[in-house]
Amino acid sequence: MPDPVITLTTDFGDASPYVAAMKGAILSINPAARIVDLSHRIPAQDIRHVDQFLAASIAYFPPGVIHVVVVDPGVGTERCLLHVEVGGHQLLLPDNGCWSALASRFAVAPTVRRLAEKRYWRQEVSNTFHGRDILAPAAAHLSLGVDPVLLGPSVKMWAMLETPQAHVGMNLIHGAILWVDDFGNLLTNIHRDSIRSPPDILKIGRKVLSKKFRWVSTYGEAQPGQLVGLISSTGPVEIAVTRGNAAKLTGASVGTAVVIGWAK
Amino acid sequence: MPDPVITLTTDFGDASPYVAAMKGAILSINPAARIVDLSHRIPAQDIRHVDQFLAASIAYFPPGVIHVVVVDPGVGTERCLLHVEVGGHQLLLPDNGCWSALASRFAVAPTVRRLAEKRYWRQEVSNTFHGRDILAPAAAHLSLGVDPVLLGPSVKMWAMLETPQAHVGMNLIHGAILWVDDFGNLLTNIHRDSIRSPPDILKIGRKVLSKKFRWVSTYGEAQPGQLVGLISSTGPVEIAVTRGNAAKLTGASVGTAVVIGWAK
Amino acid sequence: MPDPVITLTTDFGDASPYVAAMKGAILSINPAARIVDLSHRIPAQDIRHVDQFLAASIAYFPPGVIHVVVVDPGVGTERCLLHVEVGGHQLLLPDNGCWSALASRFAVAPTVRRLAEKRYWRQEVSNTFHGRDILAPAAAHLSLGVDPVLLGPSVKMWAMLETPQAHVGMNLIHGAILWVDDFGNLLTNIHRDSIRSPPDILKIGRKVLSKKFRWVSTYGEAQPGQLVGLISSTGPVEIAVTRGNAAKLTGASVGTAVVIGWAK
Repeated sequence: MPDPVITLTTDFGDASPYVAAMKGAILSINPAARIVDLSHRIPAQDIRHVDQFLAASIAYFPPGVIHVVVVDPGVGTERCLLHVEVGGHQLLLPDNGCWSALASRFAVAPTVRRLAEKRYWRQEVSNTFHGRDILAPAAAHLSLGVDPVLLGPSVKMWAMLETPQAHVGMNLIHGAILWVDDFGNLLTNIHRDSIRSPPDILKIGRKVLSKKFRWVSTYGEAQPGQLVGLISSTGPVEIAVTRGNAAKLTGASVGTAVVIGWAK
Repeated sequence: MPDPVITLTTDFGDASPYVAAMKGAILSINPAARIVDLSHRIPAQDIRHVDQFLAASIAYFPPGVIHVVVVDPGVGTERCLLHVEVGGHQLLLPDNGCWSALASRFAVAPTVRRLAEKRYWRQEVSNTFHGRDILAPAAAHLSLGVDPVLLGPSVKMWAMLETPQAHVGMNLIHGAILWVDDFGNLLTNIHRDSIRSPPDILKIGRKVLSKKFRWVSTYGEAQPGQLVGLISSTGPVEIAVTRGNAAKLTGASVGTAVVIGWAK
Repeated sequence: MPDPVITLTTDFGDASPYVAAMKGAILSINPAARIVDLSHRIPAQDIRHVDQFLAASIAYFPPGVIHVVVVDPGVGTERCLLHVEVGGHQLLLPDNGCWSALASRFAVAPTVRRLAEKRYWRQEVSNTFHGRDILAPAAAHLSLGVDPVLLGPSVKMWAMLETPQAHVGMNLIHGAILWVDDFGNLLTNIHRDSIRSPPDILKIGRKVLSKKFRWVSTYGEAQPGQLVGLISSTGPVEIAVTRGNAAKLTGASVGTAVVIGWAK
């Protein structure tokens, strides 16, 4: 059996000693754990961002991997810390809904536990760094074979984020931008299955862009600089600019309204 | 026995091929080494920053882990390279004092050796990249079981940084800010043990902030936007803003004076 | 035998879920693979940059390591994906020439294959993310012991980048800057062997800098702030400022002409 993998996703930034401290806390409990960084550059305390991040990444991991997520604006309040099993994936995270988009990908209900058993925590628990003192140690104990049942009682209620749903009409789909990637590509909440044929209407925010817009199956089909729509690699409809930056070109950002449609 | 862990902390930046070259140099000597990045975003040549970084992270690692630190403004001068054992931790680093704050956490004296034995270095040693050519190879050899005694002679003198000490008076503590984290939290040099009761005086630089300030045990006790003081997760007194940025609010940075006290 | 190592180099940025998805794709096929990040901060779609990056880093790795490189402006066009063996190193990358500078370091011809055998890809291949769907899975299969011969047919033609060559005259060498590192050091295309004695002429772009310039064997030989030339740790001639930033001081960037020479 390969050594267990624990991934880390935080908003601590790449310059932070807090990430290093979490790695130390894990290795202190399970020296054989293999630590994999997902990202430490989630925008500070941005629950919606990490929600989309996890939806776009966790599903590609095999079962058995343990994912620790620390984006925790409520640290030190009475929010709980959770162990979540969803779609075969295991996550340890604060109860702030940051796994909502991931959960929506799976039909089967998740199993959720509240971390309560202090013997799986660091001996001294600070008030402000539960990532290092509770989540990382719990992950390390799980990676040693501890049964999740031992971490704490199962719960039936937890925070969930409302994600704006696209409205699919006869000839128009009203959606919104959920994510802007580092290339400036715009990921929408419009499902690939709602695209029956190449659309020729595009409106982003207040800008009607239909004349500049072309539906493609991949960036390379269009000339550099062309505004395109396509099915993204992660599933939903994406607006992009071939070898360019759609966010800059259109001024769009997370939350901007998008309308896609068919003129006839 | 799990495969040995070697951590890397540098000021090379995340875009640098120099980090990659060090990883290659390690794996060339010990293909089983597990490499863990702590951070490559120490501000360039900032010895005081890495000193605080190491103090806030290395102590959480288990003994046996080998820590390579390359923040080395003196590369190519006659500064030595050292192997340090302190508090059960092993570090390989330039002799510039960047482990002073870490050392001050332990009562037992460190064991320090000067790297001298060239058989544990890369065959061709450049004048400007001792991280790749000396420190990384020495770490890899250590991870294979080489006794530190073989790396070079023990030394009795080494560089140490002076950290400004807080002055604790009857009703006032005069300290300074040692670190600003990525959330804008201000870490001071004021020890937790000098806080006997909730203080109600706060001065940062020239600004008297007592009226805006509240002592808490955790961020979440206060409303968003509140300026708070608390015991930080790494030990000293911290000044923060609940769900906000204390560095921006107060204009403070590393070195800014802080006064905390009791009005009666 | 140690668990196999797969390195990742991309232009996805450190905040990207795309990197995380590639890691998941690898571990889904080979849960024992050890993933090592080289950098995810190659400037977006900058082939010349990643070409220099790989030349400065891959050669330090031992044979057997598998290097996945995803800087792929042509994704979704008819560009091929390749498996390259060069100088004992194995790379999986798009056919855009991003390994030209690395290849020029080795006298022996590379072996190049076109990835064609779909059984080594993800079952569902997107049009826009071949890093996750083809390159990462192929790397994972190789790491399990799959013979590269099985990945696809060998090819005789592939993209190569032209790197500007320095022109070595009697007393003057006309070169160019190929790379600016994070410290602002300027790496040139002038070979170390063309420096027979300490040069005393330096021109960068249109600026004659001979009077401010000094040839050294290492940064520390000069006073802080001094403009120096030296043999870089990666081989070619480098222009630097001791404890300073040569790019800022001289205004030079990638492509800027450099003349080095001897007055008599």
